[in-house]
Amino acid sequence: MTVSGSTLESLTQLLGEKGVRREADDFLPEVILKPVSTEQVSGILKICHAAGQAIIPIGGKTGLAQGIHKTGDELGLSLERMNTIEEIDVHNRTMIVQAGCILQVAVEAAEEQGLLLPMDFGARGSATVGGAVATNAGGNRVIRYGMMRDMVLGLEVVLADGTVVNSLNKMIKNNTGYDLKQMFIGAEGTLGVVTRVVVRLRPLASSQNTALLAVPDFPKIIELLHYLDSSTAGTLSAFEVMWPEYYEFITREGSVHKQPLPHGSQYYVLVETLGSDSEADAENFESILGQAMEAELFEDAVLAKSQSERNAIWEIRDDVLELFNLGPIVPYDISVTLDNMEAFVDDIQAGMKTFDDPICIIFGHLGDCNLHVILGTKTPEAFDPHAQEELLYTIVGRYQGSVSAEHGIGLAKREHLHCSRNQDELALMCRMKKMMDPQNILNPNKVLAADFVSANA
Amino acid sequence: MTVSGSTLESLTQLLGEKGVRREADDFLPEVILKPVSTEQVSGILKICHAAGQAIIPIGGKTGLAQGIHKTGDELGLSLERMNTIEEIDVHNRTMIVQAGCILQVAVEAAEEQGLLLPMDFGARGSATVGGAVATNAGGNRVIRYGMMRDMVLGLEVVLADGTVVNSLNKMIKNNTGYDLKQMFIGAEGTLGVVTRVVVRLRPLASSQNTALLAVPDFPKIIELLHYLDSSTAGTLSAFEVMWPEYYEFITREGSVHKQPLPHGSQYYVLVETLGSDSEADAENFESILGQAMEAELFEDAVLAKSQSERNAIWEIRDDVLELFNLGPIVPYDISVTLDNMEAFVDDIQAGMKTFDDPICIIFGHLGDCNLHVILGTKTPEAFDPHAQEELLYTIVGRYQGSVSAEHGIGLAKREHLHCSRNQDELALMCRMKKMMDPQNILNPNKVLAADFVSANA
Repeated sequence: MTVSGSTLESLTQLLGEKGVRREADDFLPEVILKPVSTEQVSGILKICHAAGQAIIPIGGKTGLAQGIHKTGDELGLSLERMNTIEEIDVHNRTMIVQAGCILQVAVEAAEEQGLLLPMDFGARGSATVGGAVATNAGGNRVIRYGMMRDMVLGLEVVLADGTVVNSLNKMIKNNTGYDLKQMFIGAEGTLGVVTRVVVRLRPLASSQNTALLAVPDFPKIIELLHYLDSSTAGTLSAFEVMWPEYYEFITREGSVHKQPLPHGSQYYVLVETLGSDSEADAENFESILGQAMEAELFEDAVLAKSQSERNAIWEIRDDVLELFNLGPIVPYDISVTLDNMEAFVDDIQAGMKTFDDPICIIFGHLGDCNLHVILGTKTPEAFDPHAQEELLYTIVGRYQGSVSAEHGIGLAKREHLHCSRNQDELALMCRMKKMMDPQNILNPNKVLAADFVSANA
Repeated sequence: MTVSGSTLESLTQLLGEKGVRREADDFLPEVILKPVSTEQVSGILKICHAAGQAIIPIGGKTGLAQGIHKTGDELGLSLERMNTIEEIDVHNRTMIVQAGCILQVAVEAAEEQGLLLPMDFGARGSATVGGAVATNAGGNRVIRYGMMRDMVLGLEVVLADGTVVNSLNKMIKNNTGYDLKQMFIGAEGTLGVVTRVVVRLRPLASSQNTALLAVPDFPKIIELLHYLDSSTAGTLSAFEVMWPEYYEFITREGSVHKQPLPHGSQYYVLVETLGSDSEADAENFESILGQAMEAELFEDAVLAKSQSERNAIWEIRDDVLELFNLGPIVPYDISVTLDNMEAFVDDIQAGMKTFDDPICIIFGHLGDCNLHVILGTKTPEAFDPHAQEELLYTIVGRYQGSVSAEHGIGLAKREHLHCSRNQDELALMCRMKKMMDPQNILNPNKVLAADFVSANA
């Protein structure tokens, strides 16, 4: 630990002993600062800016891109003590919440007022609102409600030099100059520290209809998506596709999951609508699927007839951790346009055949162009994450896809960013980083390496 | 005209005689450059950057904030010859279009493929796609589909020094580093010149239901909005409110417009849904409104039973030009949160009573927090636009509203930007402007005055 003693002393003076904690960890900073107010965050940044001391903003530690790993002598900055829901404005349908609030707590508080904060993903119980903003989180309902960026109306942000920028807009439309908040959303804490968020809330849905469909070929998946998107008039809230390797492993003999549909199909598609009239919507959902069946867009289907049947289908889709029983694997998070998706998957499957005992499992938010690709080998000795990564990202580049659809770049994908962003885009990112954080103290080396920024800004 | 002869010569060499046109105008630049390719735009910027020559990007000339007025010796830069729709990808539901394409042309091209480009506002027939991006246009369907920002997936932009940044992303999800396009959307041509746009397309709606409702008081408007928003499950596509001064003048005796509802109510609300099943949606719309009537959320209603009845209702809402017959007026474009809106309007109406023969007419996209406020005086000699503006924007500031909901800042609202943005936000905007355009050649003095940028960057 080579943080200077005098810097730590100033920080302890500012935050008290409770605000400066030591937590041994192989990957995260050892010293975590825990401010209780925006003023304290500002004070921290002022001290660190003067001392050239780097910090890493830390949310719920649920990220998948090593966005909070240390790369040197950074201090951690956790907003866990800044977790208050400050306002739910039921007239205007907005929430003002401190960045350290757990996502699920915010979602439940909105629900108590009959309102929906439509961000939903597996780590909802530990991820923070600030982390979701910093990574522009996605999840299960993007097709209907968009990503975190689409839910944020305003932000309060502390800049590298400690300046607090209050931009807590609550209005849906506000074209007064540059839309500053956009810069910080998805920047993974490298341009500023988000301290408070204004979130737009929506009406809670009062009906939910869910089905699992077996689809015989890829063109029919696209047809089905377009058909449902058109015929459900904006109420389609999930279109999740599982390739058979995923579905058949998760629902294999002896698994905790029953098989809602038998094995043997090419694709399994989870579809869901959120509506406002339970009886009419259920009828309508059935009739829409009936027409799709007549048009042979799928070959088999099961409709959830109860909440427990719905949960059972979602639990299959969500049981990603089970895949780690297959052998050593790495989960990837890519996007590719729908017209390229089938060829993209073919290329990956063909490429993985060059490995011994390969694992190649694909599923994801197809309606958003987003696939999760799980690669590995059944025999640990054949596991070569570097080679499989090269294979995957080369193919991503070939189809002009994205190496990160929703997880972000962090450290984990930094060296592959160039597969999805060209030199001019990267140079412009470097200039933004340099302008916002000239001393490179805000989550340095994440997204862009420090020396890459210096060379290109 | 004091553009240097050698600069003009270089530009003529680059663009040919057809690409350098003189067009006498009191407000716009006299010399308009008309490139035919991104390479030419890049060449223009390189020449202008080297010469310190300012340019003003010009779209369809339909803006309402003096965003293309000259402030010195700027050259105009019109992309009217770059108007090609380069691709409509029906699988991926995206369009790649050059910035000079007329919005309506793009909308109709999407429609021919059964797809919706959901941007719709009065100037659709002359506004350009690039202009809509540069001003982050809003319009009549924001409540359902969002603003232009929400429809843009990717951009190609030419920077101040002529660098072409190709960021033509076609994927819905793409978290690979900073989302650069956001910086240019709504920046009114001050940070870069948008040359190509990737637009997200949606399924065309196959049903449309429209009604005009008479509502007795303001709290019931909010109740009605929330009720409809919940009960129409995301299909509500317009919630437009007219205060009685608007409705009664537009439908007065002798007007071309019939009165769908009699005069005498407090508020007139145009509501519309876009759906996918014409028979079921019409029934559903009627039943939803029936319940609202039972709950006394409105006191009178008329449902459009044909396209011509629908058009007649929309024509009342859209006949803003008719207001110029009242006397000298200025139309303003403000936002305020719904919880503050009634008090906000009360204050304006009270304030305008201090003028002789005041005109104070209010209507707008209430579902988006956005009101158009028309202020003036019936007697031209009492017309004092400066004083009424001060009155209005002081009240906007009091309620933390926005001096521009959808029209932008340009020159027209620049001096009032501080009513809606604090000093820290403005300083950050100046730093962005300085970084992106150090010589201040991109639409200088718009949004931020040149000396303000110098003093704050």
